Amino acid sequence: MLETMHDENSLIRKIRRELQARSGSRSSPLRLGIGDDAALWQPISGRDLILTCDWFIETVHFRRDLHPPDSIGWKCLARALSDVAAMAATPRCFLLSLAIPQSHCGKWLDNFLSGLRRASQTFGCAPAGGDTTRSSKILISVTVIGEVKTRKALLRSGARPGDLICVSGRLGEAQLGLELLLRRKSAARSSITAIEKHLYPAPRLELARQLATRKLPTSLMDLSDGLSLDLRRLCDASSVGAVIEEEKLPLPNAVGEHSSRAIRLQAALHGGDDYELLFTVPKRKLRHLPSALAGAPLTVIGEVRAGSRIVLLKSSGRRSPLESAGWDPFRGSAKGS
Amino acid sequence: MLETMHDENSLIRKIRRELQARSGSRSSPLRLGIGDDAALWQPISGRDLILTCDWFIETVHFRRDLHPPDSIGWKCLARALSDVAAMAATPRCFLLSLAIPQSHCGKWLDNFLSGLRRASQTFGCAPAGGDTTRSSKILISVTVIGEVKTRKALLRSGARPGDLICVSGRLGEAQLGLELLLRRKSAARSSITAIEKHLYPAPRLELARQLATRKLPTSLMDLSDGLSLDLRRLCDASSVGAVIEEEKLPLPNAVGEHSSRAIRLQAALHGGDDYELLFTVPKRKLRHLPSALAGAPLTVIGEVRAGSRIVLLKSSGRRSPLESAGWDPFRGSAKGS
Repeated sequence: MLETMHDENSLIRKIRRELQARSGSRSSPLRLGIGDDAALWQPISGRDLILTCDWFIETVHFRRDLHPPDSIGWKCLARALSDVAAMAATPRCFLLSLAIPQSHCGKWLDNFLSGLRRASQTFGCAPAGGDTTRSSKILISVTVIGEVKTRKALLRSGARPGDLICVSGRLGEAQLGLELLLRRKSAARSSITAIEKHLYPAPRLELARQLATRKLPTSLMDLSDGLSLDLRRLCDASSVGAVIEEEKLPLPNAVGEHSSRAIRLQAALHGGDDYELLFTVPKRKLRHLPSALAGAPLTVIGEVRAGSRIVLLKSSGRRSPLESAGWDPFRGSAKGS
Repeated sequence: MLETMHDENSLIRKIRRELQARSGSRSSPLRLGIGDDAALWQPISGRDLILTCDWFIETVHFRRDLHPPDSIGWKCLARALSDVAAMAATPRCFLLSLAIPQSHCGKWLDNFLSGLRRASQTFGCAPAGGDTTRSSKILISVTVIGEVKTRKALLRSGARPGDLICVSGRLGEAQLGLELLLRRKSAARSSITAIEKHLYPAPRLELARQLATRKLPTSLMDLSDGLSLDLRRLCDASSVGAVIEEEKLPLPNAVGEHSSRAIRLQAALHGGDDYELLFTVPKRKLRHLPSALAGAPLTVIGEVRAGSRIVLLKSSGRRSPLESAGWDPFRGSAKGS
């Protein structure tokens, strides 16, 4: 039965009930979870902590009329977890800041929490607490705390000229999924991989850990805002440039209206929300790089160069600067400009 | 000179410059701060971690036309730090989730960051990272990570029948400050303590630590939503009831239009935003309780009782149930109802 009256205390009780009670017997690092002034957590000695937070805001990142609440619950955590994967770390717990309209405290919230709980269990990241308030728009901010062996985190800043540039998975798939969703105006259960990837992305936590164990990457980050923008960030952090070969990009599969190579190429270069990994590997380690790892295909797409320019080597043989045209909330998406 | 074009990268650079560059030589627990996928932090062995987050949203918690940006910067962190004080812990670092309109990336942001930096330095809590996006409303969520000796955090749940109920400072002062501000429609520098307390609250971090060192409290929390609502939470967590004596409440000083005892009493019972401490002390320890500690007056205002009822003993000698009428975002403030 839906509760018809909601105050903050009853909302917190509901969140605790839905998220914690069903998390089963999985061992939790929490001494004290949702309900007191703050959560209490015991870190493991010899580990560094990873701290990251991520906005997920109606009309900026999702639409109330288009995105199912359980996808919003899943994705708000999955996005933040991708930043933990980007350091080759292991997530431990998360805090949920949730602001919703009074009208969304019933069925919408149930489904949202169901998606969030599923992500929490799938990726082993326990709910630790949070804050709730009302708002006419749906506002979500998720903070994730993770762990990594002391000094073993993989940073953006280690790429060196001559290193090979690699990515996991197919790039631009989530962007094609969003475009399909916008045309259909409904997220009714679909078997289309691209739509699934847009709604329920899976952070590459296991892949990142396995790459780190094999000591392959000199630098690592996740692809959340599109290759062209995120590669710029990696190059800036490492003080290097890059050449990307168009021919080598792992394009998304053709689906329905989105079959042309040009559309799929634009999505691969600039589309956001893939949550794949972007990393660099020294050339001498190429023979140790498998073609797939932890369920993800791995592709060499280019090479790190000295300087700061990022160049796209086209199929025609022409070279042109690769403009950063991925997703930026302060410019809007300039995809394909 | 103000920057006129803003993208997310330049915004992050500005935040890093303003918050980190000036934090001086204070030793920081951070291995890696703002700029990579996540922050890296080395915990101290033998300590538990405190994790807490707090919304601070335009129109819900503050008004763009009324509250100076440096107060918003100060208060968004001070509020979250109060939850760390509420566990008798020490803050270490924070994450800032900030969503603002494009038009606020210049002078408003400078002043906001100036207030935030001042709070960060005053309370020894280093900026670790965050996330930025655009939004028509100003949205802020702050996550604070703190530390406390293993198993030494003070919880809400330890109050026992017979314990004395104590508070720090004067209750309702911030509420009177807000009401004065609303009448004046300006926050022009004022020497009025109540307005200062509303704009620049100081979390009782040092007081909480000193109370814990003296092993006085059986339970502790901060007063953020008003005594009547927060005492209900403490009693629920401890499975107890309480009697509060109206005569003993430390009322705010009379200022201007807000001089009547009735108004000041309502503010003390139900006014939010004080960030004072509410705690319980065994009767046998009363003689060890100083009248002031760490700059804050301490007042015994009542007693813990068996059961679950919270009773107000009025000056007239009459008893009545104390209704929870503090601030609740899902009901709005029911102050004085």
